[in-house]
Amino acid sequence: MTDAKPIYNKIALIGLGLIGGSIGLAAKRSGLAGQISGSARTEETRKVAMERGLVDQVFTTAAEAVADADLVILCTPVGALGPVAAEIKPALKSGATVTDVGSVKAAVIEAVQPHIPEGVHLVPAHPVAGTEFSGPHAGFPDLFENRWCILTPLAQTVSPDYAGAVDRLDLFWRGCGSQVDRMDAKHHDLVLAITSHVPHLIAYNIVGTADDLEAVTQSEVIKYSASGFRDFTRIAASDPTMWRDIFLNNSDAVLEMLSRFSEDLTALQRAIRWKDGDVLFELFSRTRAIRRSIIEAGQDSDEPDFGRGHAHFRDSDDAQD
Amino acid sequence: MTDAKPIYNKIALIGLGLIGGSIGLAAKRSGLAGQISGSARTEETRKVAMERGLVDQVFTTAAEAVADADLVILCTPVGALGPVAAEIKPALKSGATVTDVGSVKAAVIEAVQPHIPEGVHLVPAHPVAGTEFSGPHAGFPDLFENRWCILTPLAQTVSPDYAGAVDRLDLFWRGCGSQVDRMDAKHHDLVLAITSHVPHLIAYNIVGTADDLEAVTQSEVIKYSASGFRDFTRIAASDPTMWRDIFLNNSDAVLEMLSRFSEDLTALQRAIRWKDGDVLFELFSRTRAIRRSIIEAGQDSDEPDFGRGHAHFRDSDDAQD
Repeated sequence: MTDAKPIYNKIALIGLGLIGGSIGLAAKRSGLAGQISGSARTEETRKVAMERGLVDQVFTTAAEAVADADLVILCTPVGALGPVAAEIKPALKSGATVTDVGSVKAAVIEAVQPHIPEGVHLVPAHPVAGTEFSGPHAGFPDLFENRWCILTPLAQTVSPDYAGAVDRLDLFWRGCGSQVDRMDAKHHDLVLAITSHVPHLIAYNIVGTADDLEAVTQSEVIKYSASGFRDFTRIAASDPTMWRDIFLNNSDAVLEMLSRFSEDLTALQRAIRWKDGDVLFELFSRTRAIRRSIIEAGQDSDEPDFGRGHAHFRDSDDAQD
Repeated sequence: MTDAKPIYNKIALIGLGLIGGSIGLAAKRSGLAGQISGSARTEETRKVAMERGLVDQVFTTAAEAVADADLVILCTPVGALGPVAAEIKPALKSGATVTDVGSVKAAVIEAVQPHIPEGVHLVPAHPVAGTEFSGPHAGFPDLFENRWCILTPLAQTVSPDYAGAVDRLDLFWRGCGSQVDRMDAKHHDLVLAITSHVPHLIAYNIVGTADDLEAVTQSEVIKYSASGFRDFTRIAASDPTMWRDIFLNNSDAVLEMLSRFSEDLTALQRAIRWKDGDVLFELFSRTRAIRRSIIEAGQDSDEPDFGRGHAHFRDSDDAQD
């Protein structure tokens, strides 16, 4: 694929962690850009980025990296996007597209849009992909393969130029291996609140609760973690800065979904107290169907990951005793 | 290892699902038993058990299977243990050991102990291992490898015979690949409530909440599940009967831990509402340390499972941007 015509002559990656690094590697592999520049705050990240070939050139400041870029991708934590946009404003090329990879969209638009000069197109985006690792070592070129990238184009901007910029970014993400969806920023924030933000919050929360107990030692929690807990710790190992920013910037949707979650949990609590087994059984059966749909949609494998670390396995998935 | 001296001449497995089947395969592989009989309620399970060689002989009733057995392992859901114990009572050999694999212990002892004849030793046990699959196809011989098995011997029974029976069962579980711990049944139930039962409950709960939303479609939940949600659906795909029984039989400890969880979650909710980023950042950093301890203890791998489905990976784990 590397002899395909590049979609952009030059792209700039601001921030070279898991997502920025993976975009660089994916874009190189598929020849999506004539040239890739990048910037990172720390010397160490810049060094690793060049060693791993995440970008062709690396700069200390975002403003240097975006010079002449046709596509600027902001890959910093959400809380840093406003200041970064202010910094690059004078250096942006006319006709360029600015996008991001943030897990929240309405607040990001609010922070970034004021800094976008006339003639530059802001097309917010969110590649729904990640791992529990972060930093310049963490990226890999097929992170986006078969994952979804959500574009949330600005509703009030409807010029043909803008529509063209959106289509081109759509093509870029497909080139990275993603499937692409478009939706309103507010709706995005609600969807991600339930599929990502609240799950992360409750994972962080239960790991914290376990850590605080007096009656159960930390050593016990660790030894018996294979019974379910370890999967929560994996999620709760995600980058703290990134996640703090997500909750601060999507608080309305998170609080709304959290209150639904708590309401439902209270009903389960009541069913346990009153030993209403039917309520529990009905829910526990219903949730299995959703799991099957996720596997059928190719968004997870049906390997028995829950009991991971063994080589052999059986020939059937859902046999019941 | 198959030429080692068997620990028991004959063992009987009552129930041939994930755990029962895995014990049969592990015991055979390591020559832990001279002979293995088993029983299962359904014709289909009995057929699969023989085809897969989970046991040497299979019976329709538990009473037939336990005849002459030196070790009887009850591997049914916790709610069925009382009736099964009543059924096998007249058929138990004098001097035999009866054990189980239930995820709760105090309630199990209460249900089973009244049916244990004099001269038979009840040694409750809980192998802390499993996958999200169930049934006679689901077992594999190394399910217990490097996992912990918790014995909760009866405090009031202190005869040398009983102590010998506990030691022998300890040896058996080590032969299956487990590490073995001993503790009081009540403490076990508290430890498992936080490491396993409450995590499963909140996983089931959030999958149910997502399924009930009007503002977010099920198709959206499925498409964007790679952002965290899918890991919860994996846990929420566990066997409904088994889990209903666990919550009904460990309600006190689960409700206690659940109230701690909810209290902590309310504090996070408040931090989000008041945009107190420091509270969030402090928790999100602390939980990472627990994750590291679990990996160091060999209870999980540090492969980037959260972004599963890619072949290559990077050379460092926790580099920060």
